Amino acid sequence: MTAFADRLIEGVRSKGTPLCIGLDPFPDKIPAVFGPTGSVLALQAFSENLIAIAAQHAAVLKPQLGFFEAYGPDGFAVAVDAVARAKLAGMAVILDAKRGDIGSTAEGYTRACLGPAPGFDADCVTINPYLGKDSLEPFIAEAQAREKGVAVLVRTSNPGARDLQDLNVDGAPLWHRVAEMIEPAAPRLVGASGWSGLMAVAGATYPQEARALRALMPRSLLLVPGYGAQGASAADAAAGFVTGKYGREGGVISSSRAVAYPPAAQAAKTLENWRAAISDAMSTAAAELRAACIS
Amino acid sequence: MTAFADRLIEGVRSKGTPLCIGLDPFPDKIPAVFGPTGSVLALQAFSENLIAIAAQHAAVLKPQLGFFEAYGPDGFAVAVDAVARAKLAGMAVILDAKRGDIGSTAEGYTRACLGPAPGFDADCVTINPYLGKDSLEPFIAEAQAREKGVAVLVRTSNPGARDLQDLNVDGAPLWHRVAEMIEPAAPRLVGASGWSGLMAVAGATYPQEARALRALMPRSLLLVPGYGAQGASAADAAAGFVTGKYGREGGVISSSRAVAYPPAAQAAKTLENWRAAISDAMSTAAAELRAACIS
Repeated sequence: MTAFADRLIEGVRSKGTPLCIGLDPFPDKIPAVFGPTGSVLALQAFSENLIAIAAQHAAVLKPQLGFFEAYGPDGFAVAVDAVARAKLAGMAVILDAKRGDIGSTAEGYTRACLGPAPGFDADCVTINPYLGKDSLEPFIAEAQAREKGVAVLVRTSNPGARDLQDLNVDGAPLWHRVAEMIEPAAPRLVGASGWSGLMAVAGATYPQEARALRALMPRSLLLVPGYGAQGASAADAAAGFVTGKYGREGGVISSSRAVAYPPAAQAAKTLENWRAAISDAMSTAAAELRAACIS
Repeated sequence: MTAFADRLIEGVRSKGTPLCIGLDPFPDKIPAVFGPTGSVLALQAFSENLIAIAAQHAAVLKPQLGFFEAYGPDGFAVAVDAVARAKLAGMAVILDAKRGDIGSTAEGYTRACLGPAPGFDADCVTINPYLGKDSLEPFIAEAQAREKGVAVLVRTSNPGARDLQDLNVDGAPLWHRVAEMIEPAAPRLVGASGWSGLMAVAGATYPQEARALRALMPRSLLLVPGYGAQGASAADAAAGFVTGKYGREGGVISSSRAVAYPPAAQAAKTLENWRAAISDAMSTAAAELRAACIS
């Protein structure tokens, strides 16, 4: 085994891009070629096909569990299958579950998200810090024991992030306190690369804040959502990265809608045309982010 | 249909107790009489039997989804079944999922937790406020449209609650800001009883804080976890309730371990003995809370 942080950064270096493909299966956007709208069949076929192409362009997949749960237990099973498929295809999987609970319930979620079958056995899971350190500890302990990672929500990319995350606590925004709260655990998940798999989630829509976060958490890999459809540029998205011998690096940058639902793919009448359109979109996103990390 | 708040408070009045039964299926604590340890079979049998007895003593069930998810997709399906069973038995169900996400993903979780089949169709769901107002809105809108409720984590009962929730923001703890952030939405879920189904979660371990929360959110029903095994007394747990013509009321108080795993039930060798022990424990908890609300 290799530390999650090392596997992630090796994947990024080998693909030459920090692109992370977000798997957000909107029922209404899944093309009819995959099956009846809203069916579990279409969900499964879409996920399977998207992952096969994603594995050619990116080192990391981020499935949004909420979309799968909307289909009930069968959708949950499709999500488990999607994680397994992506891992088989050589991708690292960050399960975007945004879990957060206390004590034994947190242990249940840990087992579900990071544990072996019947768990997802994902490489990393997103978690919410509102309940405090003891709510994060089961996830971090499991990550440490089994070469996994955790990605803590620090500063998200939505407008509502301002409501609580930016509140002033003794001269700094609340999310700085979150970063300070979790940073002491970062060494526990550091790999040979020097990077830590205690990741911080910081929206690409706020590049200045990504730089501030980098200062607060120098070793943590960042998970940057919001690139593409949410309006951030490649340079903005990489604002929290640092320059080293492999170029600018320090995390992954997630794109969902722009790579999974480009207009050409939505207009495709055949599976072949859809595949070509998705491949184009992912290739473009990968190249844009590559360029932003070379300059 | 009747507003969720009215259904909840009617249930509490009719049972004469604010007791809410927490369904936390610890794999290691489920008695062998229900099936092999750790099996989905045992999970299903335990849940089914516990709900049948719970419906006799309490108006509300709170299943902890994390315990079910630890069993994978089959466990998720058992949770869906448990919610349906409890509703059929006449209970209101607060799905303890602690979800929190943005935009379309929040809509996915809303559909999963509160939506009709293949969703849970729970009466209420617990949600995490860290991502701000826009992350709560899909849940509140669905609750308003379909006579459901939401229970927002405000001040939790774990030691780690201090790490962020108690941080000082301009003279008041962060959790006061959370209460102030959500209070304006409370009227949208108010029923004929005058109570709002925009519930606030406030741990029973901090009665002074429950009183402060009551002042900040006068109409909101409270969901008070941590009674029983977590060490709070019945009077502490009811600290956020107010005196009216039906006695002290204003929410529900959850007990999990004390009513689901009392020593007599754990020692039982037959299903009949287990049932009797569980019934005794629930009856005792119901009576203790009844007494605390009469005085």
